[in-house]
Amino acid sequence: MIEIHPLEGIGEISPGADLAAILSAALAPLSPRGGDVLAVTQKIVSKAENRFVRLSDVTPGARAHELAEQTGKDARLIELVLQESTDVLRAARGVLITRHRLGLVMANAGIDRSNVGDGNEDQVLLLPENPDTSAAALASRITERFGASPAILITDSFGRPWRQGVVNVGIGAWGLPSLDDRRGDTDRQGRRLEVTQVAYADLIASAAGLAMGEAAEGVPAALVRGLKLGAAPNPATSLVRALDEDLFR
Amino acid sequence: MIEIHPLEGIGEISPGADLAAILSAALAPLSPRGGDVLAVTQKIVSKAENRFVRLSDVTPGARAHELAEQTGKDARLIELVLQESTDVLRAARGVLITRHRLGLVMANAGIDRSNVGDGNEDQVLLLPENPDTSAAALASRITERFGASPAILITDSFGRPWRQGVVNVGIGAWGLPSLDDRRGDTDRQGRRLEVTQVAYADLIASAAGLAMGEAAEGVPAALVRGLKLGAAPNPATSLVRALDEDLFR
Repeated sequence: MIEIHPLEGIGEISPGADLAAILSAALAPLSPRGGDVLAVTQKIVSKAENRFVRLSDVTPGARAHELAEQTGKDARLIELVLQESTDVLRAARGVLITRHRLGLVMANAGIDRSNVGDGNEDQVLLLPENPDTSAAALASRITERFGASPAILITDSFGRPWRQGVVNVGIGAWGLPSLDDRRGDTDRQGRRLEVTQVAYADLIASAAGLAMGEAAEGVPAALVRGLKLGAAPNPATSLVRALDEDLFR
Repeated sequence: MIEIHPLEGIGEISPGADLAAILSAALAPLSPRGGDVLAVTQKIVSKAENRFVRLSDVTPGARAHELAEQTGKDARLIELVLQESTDVLRAARGVLITRHRLGLVMANAGIDRSNVGDGNEDQVLLLPENPDTSAAALASRITERFGASPAILITDSFGRPWRQGVVNVGIGAWGLPSLDDRRGDTDRQGRRLEVTQVAYADLIASAAGLAMGEAAEGVPAALVRGLKLGAAPNPATSLVRALDEDLFR
């Protein structure tokens, strides 16, 4: 059996907060053990890392003004999106899809305006600078506390082509096979499996999302327990497919 | 806490098998209760519904021959893909992405050659005729046994644009909000949430996929327990976005 435990009582995270200590306190009653994955939303990692930007400090360039016209979005927000991105994939009324510098294809480069902390409409929150590094840093600090760390997964919610609604995916990871390569495995008839690579981090992120989304106010972390983390770990960037390798276009 | 229980001992499913009875037997030790979702892979539903086709019975048309040339795939398989699809989105060496008549955008219209049952290379397995209907039929039969049924989710594994690896998604559902519309909800500062629709069936499918994928031979069903299934149920087709509404292109 696999268990998904929401971690309650984490509260608001302020810039500079000792997130590892806060998560460790929330983990303590569960006594972390092998096969555990601690899933943490991008939002609280970004907050602790002070990835806040004040829109009033941003001066939009010409391209941002042009895209603001096309999308109806705030040109200052778009300027930040462009600074965080390497390509613009789609711009239309209400829609701005880019490739984030981390390789992630997503709306608004993952920049968040809702619930960023203090009711200040001027503040937005960027993704962590490097979520795989953030995950490793959390693991290192949690190891100090418990002598070992659960695997760490930093999650975000993404829209997708062709399907309604958002799902949770993994954007930073430590200690788990984000991309689980099962190539070479065979089925019961000894035939090679057609599906050979599993986006394991995304499965775990979605499972954690069930527990994180259900509380009235949302819970920013969950412990997924009982996984077999046998394969060699690889970072969440392993899940990024190069634009020119994309099979769908 | 949410629990994911793999359902063991289901064994091979033959055409015409009484899948509801088989699943009920596997469920019995868990005493189904409210907040349970029974996730079942598409493959065993298709097998029970005898969605097998012999490639030797298929005569490819001109378009199938043309796409076989482009993709390097068996023209008979492609003929079946075309019969199951409304649009071809991408054809290239080794790749055929279509829009399935159910609205799903996927590789090879979900037609499966691996592990379809008897080691017969000539056999392939189509998706269920109508997975939402299949889910409702399973629920109805399971209700006869237990007086009530867990929500039912039929899952498949999909590749995705821009991300490596497959994830599990919901292609048929009964008794759960496949698309959970949280529009109108507000964040802690009273601002309307930016993300307002959650692909709940896909989250559950991915959670179940963790339990289904870990066994040596794969487990074709899992019970997800402890969910709050409060919102009004809607079918898995609620997750299909019309091609012309797609935000990513």
